[in-house]
Amino acid sequence: MTEPTADATGPARRIGVVGGGQLARMMAGPAAELGVSLAVLAEKPDDAAAQVVPDAPLGSHLDAAAVTALAERTDVLTFDHEHVPPETLRALARAGHIVAPDADALQYAQDKAWMRGRMAALGVPQPRFSVLMDLTDPDARPTAGELDAFLGQVGGEAVLKTSRGGYDGKGVRVVRSSEDAADWLADDTLLGDMPLVAEEKVPFTRELAALVARSTTGEMRSWPVAETVQKFGTCFEVTAPAPGLSAERQAGIQALAERIAEELDVTGVLAVELFDLAPVGEEPDPEGRAGALGVEVNELAMRPHNSGHWTQDGAVTDQFEQHLRAVAGWPLGATAPTAPWTVMVNLLGGSETDLVVSAQRALAADPGVRLHLYGKSVRPGRKLGHVTVTGTDLDEVRARARRAERLVVDGIDPEDPQTTVQEDR
Amino acid sequence: MTEPTADATGPARRIGVVGGGQLARMMAGPAAELGVSLAVLAEKPDDAAAQVVPDAPLGSHLDAAAVTALAERTDVLTFDHEHVPPETLRALARAGHIVAPDADALQYAQDKAWMRGRMAALGVPQPRFSVLMDLTDPDARPTAGELDAFLGQVGGEAVLKTSRGGYDGKGVRVVRSSEDAADWLADDTLLGDMPLVAEEKVPFTRELAALVARSTTGEMRSWPVAETVQKFGTCFEVTAPAPGLSAERQAGIQALAERIAEELDVTGVLAVELFDLAPVGEEPDPEGRAGALGVEVNELAMRPHNSGHWTQDGAVTDQFEQHLRAVAGWPLGATAPTAPWTVMVNLLGGSETDLVVSAQRALAADPGVRLHLYGKSVRPGRKLGHVTVTGTDLDEVRARARRAERLVVDGIDPEDPQTTVQEDR
Repeated sequence: MTEPTADATGPARRIGVVGGGQLARMMAGPAAELGVSLAVLAEKPDDAAAQVVPDAPLGSHLDAAAVTALAERTDVLTFDHEHVPPETLRALARAGHIVAPDADALQYAQDKAWMRGRMAALGVPQPRFSVLMDLTDPDARPTAGELDAFLGQVGGEAVLKTSRGGYDGKGVRVVRSSEDAADWLADDTLLGDMPLVAEEKVPFTRELAALVARSTTGEMRSWPVAETVQKFGTCFEVTAPAPGLSAERQAGIQALAERIAEELDVTGVLAVELFDLAPVGEEPDPEGRAGALGVEVNELAMRPHNSGHWTQDGAVTDQFEQHLRAVAGWPLGATAPTAPWTVMVNLLGGSETDLVVSAQRALAADPGVRLHLYGKSVRPGRKLGHVTVTGTDLDEVRARARRAERLVVDGIDPEDPQTTVQEDR
Repeated sequence: MTEPTADATGPARRIGVVGGGQLARMMAGPAAELGVSLAVLAEKPDDAAAQVVPDAPLGSHLDAAAVTALAERTDVLTFDHEHVPPETLRALARAGHIVAPDADALQYAQDKAWMRGRMAALGVPQPRFSVLMDLTDPDARPTAGELDAFLGQVGGEAVLKTSRGGYDGKGVRVVRSSEDAADWLADDTLLGDMPLVAEEKVPFTRELAALVARSTTGEMRSWPVAETVQKFGTCFEVTAPAPGLSAERQAGIQALAERIAEELDVTGVLAVELFDLAPVGEEPDPEGRAGALGVEVNELAMRPHNSGHWTQDGAVTDQFEQHLRAVAGWPLGATAPTAPWTVMVNLLGGSETDLVVSAQRALAADPGVRLHLYGKSVRPGRKLGHVTVTGTDLDEVRARARRAERLVVDGIDPEDPQTTVQEDR
């Protein structure tokens, strides 16, 4: 492939991505259209992105030499996930490489203890929390006493998280006493120098996600705030814009996400996952715990995010193209929605074993369904793809997206629930 | 890359594309999203598609062995251009390979003499024409006498075309006497057994393009008919839907294109380029030469076509994804526009030598501009990419698309015509 040399002062055009999952895969199409080249550090030749990107060297994100080699032949290094060790990224930055987001920003997506502390310092609304370890004491360990004390403060129930390495429900559990966390507290392998973070269980009415892109030049653009629904701890259904969210709250939540992006000096896409504490269909109580905005921050991710997959079919510029433009220092694209409503539903591994085959029924049943497959083999609950539907009637759009998911994942047609679908194969 | 074996009765998922130009390149993103694999027969490693498709063997479309090798490891063979010899394709079909479109259909896009004869047999409205060679006489050659006789019939001016190999204004000239074609008539190398086709110069008011996809299963879907503007014989600007085209004519022209697709047994995308003979802003005279529809067929193309690039940003399903779905026998996607108006303008090589650099100004000036670059080096007039803009006000949408083209191609901002743009580099 051609790899034109970047002008020292010109826009970046060779983008290295650490990690070969579906997020890197979905950057491939936009990269081709923009005329930039992608190089993806993949772990295996059949990783989702390695299937579709010609330049996909094999290597681990934990191997500093492999990551460095990628940085040395690209203009900017970015990520498909948050798991590259900060010390690798700091060394690259010292050597003059552009890393986007850089280690100083990325630490807040890598480490929940750091994130909670920083959000607190910024006065960002969030659940009460406790970092179960004195971060200033190198010999400190999380203790049952700290956890039980926090449980006492928050009413006897808390969400306990490992500060690093958790995602999609992994590294997270609900606890009612330190007994429930005895294994984690005793596990040197798990913890090492990693604290546990205990968070109050928030009485939220739904979850929201604010997605913003911030360029290396500082330019920012937000997509409409979306509503997200989890299933088994994994993002499952996203509706954009979030139904029943007033224009004031939409704007306020976007401004909050942009403030976080700016304060943390994020480059690329930032997803801010939020708890909505307002009663369904009502405005939040301005005197309530979350104030007039009515939200508290749950998690941060610094890369294209599942809550933004809807933008591929429902916004002028999708999050994958925007992430490339942002990390490459290009001007950002418009984020306006192209339809009144977009609903995205994840395809999580179910009973169908070949989604290309099972997708045929869904596409035949509804020509407006947009299909996105990641080229992955089926395992129960594994993220294998997603579908989106756009339109003007939310109930109809949502029903169509859900029907497509049922047909692709389990071969079941909700419009014909009495019948087990006969497979034509 | 993974290449799952196709079920004998299942949907195709390994698609071979002969030709590595921008059309094959723009199939790459949709192929990844659909979870199908592309293999592209490219002539050079830096061909537009070879830059972005991992599986891009090198070889010529004229090399039957190379084309056959591609067919043997894919489920269906399709094309980036119309120049594969029919005998190669017929041999593949005899050997049981699926070729889409097949040689019987493709001949009407390969050979203008065949196309004109078939359109006449179908009663499709088209310009008066004459095939300047008795196709039943193996020793026949086009003669000056035949051309002069045709010129006499059509008022002294005709469009003369080589029956094969012409595109984008090549192999086409306007003649007023056989003297104007003396070189072609004397050129054995050019002609061989290839006839010349003389066509009446049609008094058209504008050009239109009807785009339809037809699946190997026979399913068909049409996009809205678009208006096209040529520049130096090359497609330059496309507006969709065609302004001022009544709903009746839209439907009638779509039906005409679908009838052609069906009669010719086309699979994949078919573009029907048309002359509009109706006075601007008026309905056609039903008693006029082109009847109530008011159009005559100019050319046919059987592949994604420049007149359909607008669908990438302006339709639910774009022509590249639809072509893949059609040739693979998948259900077709919805073709509804996603905005009231879409304007596409080609980026033809001008004074700017690095479009990634010159595009930065265009993108900064208008975040709604959609950029598509083909990874090609700049040569004057060469198709290097295109831009699209969507919106609700046609005049504004068109002005924005034209401004972006001027900025990317020549660094000139039409909104600041007194100033030569200063390049920041």
